[in-house]
Amino acid sequence: MKILLVGASGTLGSAVRDELATRHEVITAGRNGADVEVDIASVESMKAMYETIGQVDAVICTAGSTYFGALEELTPENNEISIQSKLKGQVNLVLLGLDHVQDKGSFTLTTGIIMDDPIKGGVSSAMAGGAIRAFVQSAACEMPRGIRINNVSPNMVIESIEKYGPYFPGFVPVPAGRVAQAYRKSVEGIQTGQTYSVY
Amino acid sequence: MKILLVGASGTLGSAVRDELATRHEVITAGRNGADVEVDIASVESMKAMYETIGQVDAVICTAGSTYFGALEELTPENNEISIQSKLKGQVNLVLLGLDHVQDKGSFTLTTGIIMDDPIKGGVSSAMAGGAIRAFVQSAACEMPRGIRINNVSPNMVIESIEKYGPYFPGFVPVPAGRVAQAYRKSVEGIQTGQTYSVY
Repeated sequence: MKILLVGASGTLGSAVRDELATRHEVITAGRNGADVEVDIASVESMKAMYETIGQVDAVICTAGSTYFGALEELTPENNEISIQSKLKGQVNLVLLGLDHVQDKGSFTLTTGIIMDDPIKGGVSSAMAGGAIRAFVQSAACEMPRGIRINNVSPNMVIESIEKYGPYFPGFVPVPAGRVAQAYRKSVEGIQTGQTYSVY
Repeated sequence: MKILLVGASGTLGSAVRDELATRHEVITAGRNGADVEVDIASVESMKAMYETIGQVDAVICTAGSTYFGALEELTPENNEISIQSKLKGQVNLVLLGLDHVQDKGSFTLTTGIIMDDPIKGGVSSAMAGGAIRAFVQSAACEMPRGIRINNVSPNMVIESIEKYGPYFPGFVPVPAGRVAQAYRKSVEGIQTGQTYSVY
């Protein structure tokens, strides 16, 4: 398959690329260091990306910024970070990409454990994740040409313990390689409308 | 209690007002015909509303527009209707209202059955509902001064069968008065972080 992977430079994206690149042609997209440059917070940038890559069999997104901060510091303005990137970025990747995905192709988006299991400062991220999960479940019922759509909701990954461990007390992290299997299931499997929770 | 009800002119809002007004002081807010004028898609308008009303014990939102239309007609632009109103409108009602709610007060937002049980054309609405549900669950853990937050997810109500019935085939509608009880539970009860599904 020809797979577009948006966000390949991150910890999770790298693991997904490693898992899929042995069997598929993976085209990476991201803000830098990728095959194609893209900013998912920009509709114009995503349109340009799809023009460049043409048709693919699968689109995976492991990109998406969110605002982290205590509820009392959350404002309409800083909450926009999550809305523009993780939420609208992923939704628009689907809406703008429908015509660029082959029959029976797939989209796989990324949510996260915070939407099910709150942590301090994670309200904005939870909001974005909840939006994507519901979008996926509903969009799956209306996808044209047998196109499927799922989302993967990862726990904190072992590879990020040093950076994020203190924010996830009592969470038992999982290997990024195990999370990558959920993306593989979404791309190579037959299911649609699913949330693959890797907790 | 002094209760701010945003969206009192709608079918659901009217039922909530009828239920609560016998025991509480209900201040209504909305785009027209309410005690205070407000457009929840505008941060400035909501700030002005809170300045006008001062302090309340509870804030309820039964307002929020969403875009309805087939997935293939959903665009980044028309999806903004749901994001600006139902999603950000309700989130910002909480963020901007925190300092206007008394200790141990409450917020009650509105989601909807579409986020759990997809219907044709409901993708954008489902997305907004999913965002609000996850926001509520996470924000509940960080609310200051004992303030609580819940959301009510109504099925189609019997009073709207003529208008919306054809869009909800096989859904068994519920009386608006029964949905209003969920708002009462949220305001007069002790629970927080809940999604009250009235299906």
